[in-house]
Amino acid sequence: MRAVVMYGPGDVRVEEVEEPTLTRPTDAVIRVTATCVCGSDLWPYRGFNEIGKPARMGHEYLGVVEQIGDDVHDLAVGDHVVGSFVASDNTCEICLDGYQSRCIHQVMMGGIGTQADYALIPWADGTLVKIPAERTPEQTASLLAASDVLGTGWFAAVAAGAGPGKTVAVVGDGAVGLLGVLAAEQLGAERIIAMSRHADRQELARRFGATDIVTERGAAGIAEIKELTGGYGAHSTIEAVGTQESMQQAIGATRPGGHVGFVGVAHDVELDGSDLFVSTVHLHGGPAPVRRFLPDLVEAIMTGQIAPGVVFDLTLPIEEAAEGYRAMDERTATKVMLTL
Amino acid sequence: MRAVVMYGPGDVRVEEVEEPTLTRPTDAVIRVTATCVCGSDLWPYRGFNEIGKPARMGHEYLGVVEQIGDDVHDLAVGDHVVGSFVASDNTCEICLDGYQSRCIHQVMMGGIGTQADYALIPWADGTLVKIPAERTPEQTASLLAASDVLGTGWFAAVAAGAGPGKTVAVVGDGAVGLLGVLAAEQLGAERIIAMSRHADRQELARRFGATDIVTERGAAGIAEIKELTGGYGAHSTIEAVGTQESMQQAIGATRPGGHVGFVGVAHDVELDGSDLFVSTVHLHGGPAPVRRFLPDLVEAIMTGQIAPGVVFDLTLPIEEAAEGYRAMDERTATKVMLTL
Repeated sequence: MRAVVMYGPGDVRVEEVEEPTLTRPTDAVIRVTATCVCGSDLWPYRGFNEIGKPARMGHEYLGVVEQIGDDVHDLAVGDHVVGSFVASDNTCEICLDGYQSRCIHQVMMGGIGTQADYALIPWADGTLVKIPAERTPEQTASLLAASDVLGTGWFAAVAAGAGPGKTVAVVGDGAVGLLGVLAAEQLGAERIIAMSRHADRQELARRFGATDIVTERGAAGIAEIKELTGGYGAHSTIEAVGTQESMQQAIGATRPGGHVGFVGVAHDVELDGSDLFVSTVHLHGGPAPVRRFLPDLVEAIMTGQIAPGVVFDLTLPIEEAAEGYRAMDERTATKVMLTL
Repeated sequence: MRAVVMYGPGDVRVEEVEEPTLTRPTDAVIRVTATCVCGSDLWPYRGFNEIGKPARMGHEYLGVVEQIGDDVHDLAVGDHVVGSFVASDNTCEICLDGYQSRCIHQVMMGGIGTQADYALIPWADGTLVKIPAERTPEQTASLLAASDVLGTGWFAAVAAGAGPGKTVAVVGDGAVGLLGVLAAEQLGAERIIAMSRHADRQELARRFGATDIVTERGAAGIAEIKELTGGYGAHSTIEAVGTQESMQQAIGATRPGGHVGFVGVAHDVELDGSDLFVSTVHLHGGPAPVRRFLPDLVEAIMTGQIAPGVVFDLTLPIEEAAEGYRAMDERTATKVMLTL
């Protein structure tokens, strides 16, 4: 089968690899029908994460169940499904508390690689959520977004305490940040301030519900957020980048007692204990437990309540994966779908 | 009047200084009737915090109102009062959200110094809470504890999400940690694990509601907490020390999705962003908004529901303040009350 393999920074290839087979009775194998390139895939692409050897890529996916193990009871061959970037049993105490991304049996799908014709799905009953076979291309794009970027933006908004009466600031205008705007709007936020310098992303942010745009960054960006909020700062801030600057910007833009939901995969971030102590914010984030939200997100997408799929502004056949990575790296695309 | 002044590490003196006078119409001056030495006073005493010049000390206090400014309406001369270590207007958005320790008009009482015969109280209406003039010595001790250590331990327990069904771990066996145990018990926690190596403090922890004692620290301490909690970690962890080790121990002892309430004043703490990201805990803390809790704590103390004053195991006249600092530094006392 075809699979995307990264050999090193900037070096993405599509190769023939062996098809996966069931290894445990709780596994399924799916035929991948849509996958995509994630902002987090750019870290190794840009050389910020070392990859020791050629690495299979991808952790977002829609598919059709091809095979199931003997202990898979909630799925049948032929079911259309979506899953998150972490496989989870969905039965342990951590999963039951809604933190499936830290399931005691967690398997990172990025280590398996879903930018491929087929993918092994561990803990299939706990991981996969059925989706209708009949759907529009827009709904397919939106369901694929739910696999990671929508679910992650949603978690960030929930972690930031977005809701009625709240002013939400969003640091990061990639797909996750933009879908954090959408989530904040859906959760009833009164005001949503998107921090972005790119006209196309500002427009998408406004379409998703942003009421204000701030183009300044760092101290100037924090000052502008404070000015927009009576000197207090935002109640809720979504951090969707993962750098030292973005974390400081997010914490600095938040009022005492406010909440920061951080989902940008942290790279070389060191938080000063005294600064954090004095800030008095709530800080919560990490790998998003997308599985917690998937059933509701599928419902909201299929009923037309939300249409997050518009973040995909480039669709390529999987053979052209390298071009997709390049477009996202150069920011000529926000999010790239790969078709199979 | 007499006042405690720190000249440098280990050098605490009692001197004659000028009595305070009203400077703003929202001020009050109180005659201090009881004050005490705080664990945080030990940071400069031990040379970890630089003090440029001789510094007035103390931020915990009970007193009697002596003078009030023209804009003080809720208090009268002669009222017995308690206040927190931060003066606050109690009317700004931050105060109304329950974060009076970060009031936009906050004044740190430590900069004024309450280890003295009299103290200026800014924002008197917002800062001070009336207490009965008639009370037992035990109630007086408990009310003094409410001024900081009880209020701080209570905030830590609330920030850690302590409540019914929860297993709470407590890092730090000073007065704040011990009163965090008491708060967790009052908030209905199912199980409370105190981390302590000192027999006397273990005993007090058990008296306040600890169900388990862990004597190990660091990785071994984390491992023991995990073993006690089915491999998952505590739901709620109170951090009441403020060092790199204690923060790592607190985060490490907490399950994914759990809550860390940190109130130890952070010293040379750097949190690694990746570790925090992966931990998936909720992190909340800082200078405790004691004022939020004071009315309820006064009520609980006066009705005999709680007796936190037992943390005072040494009482000295203010002239012997130096001996009080030494006793806490050498851990021969948990908490020292100074009488006037």
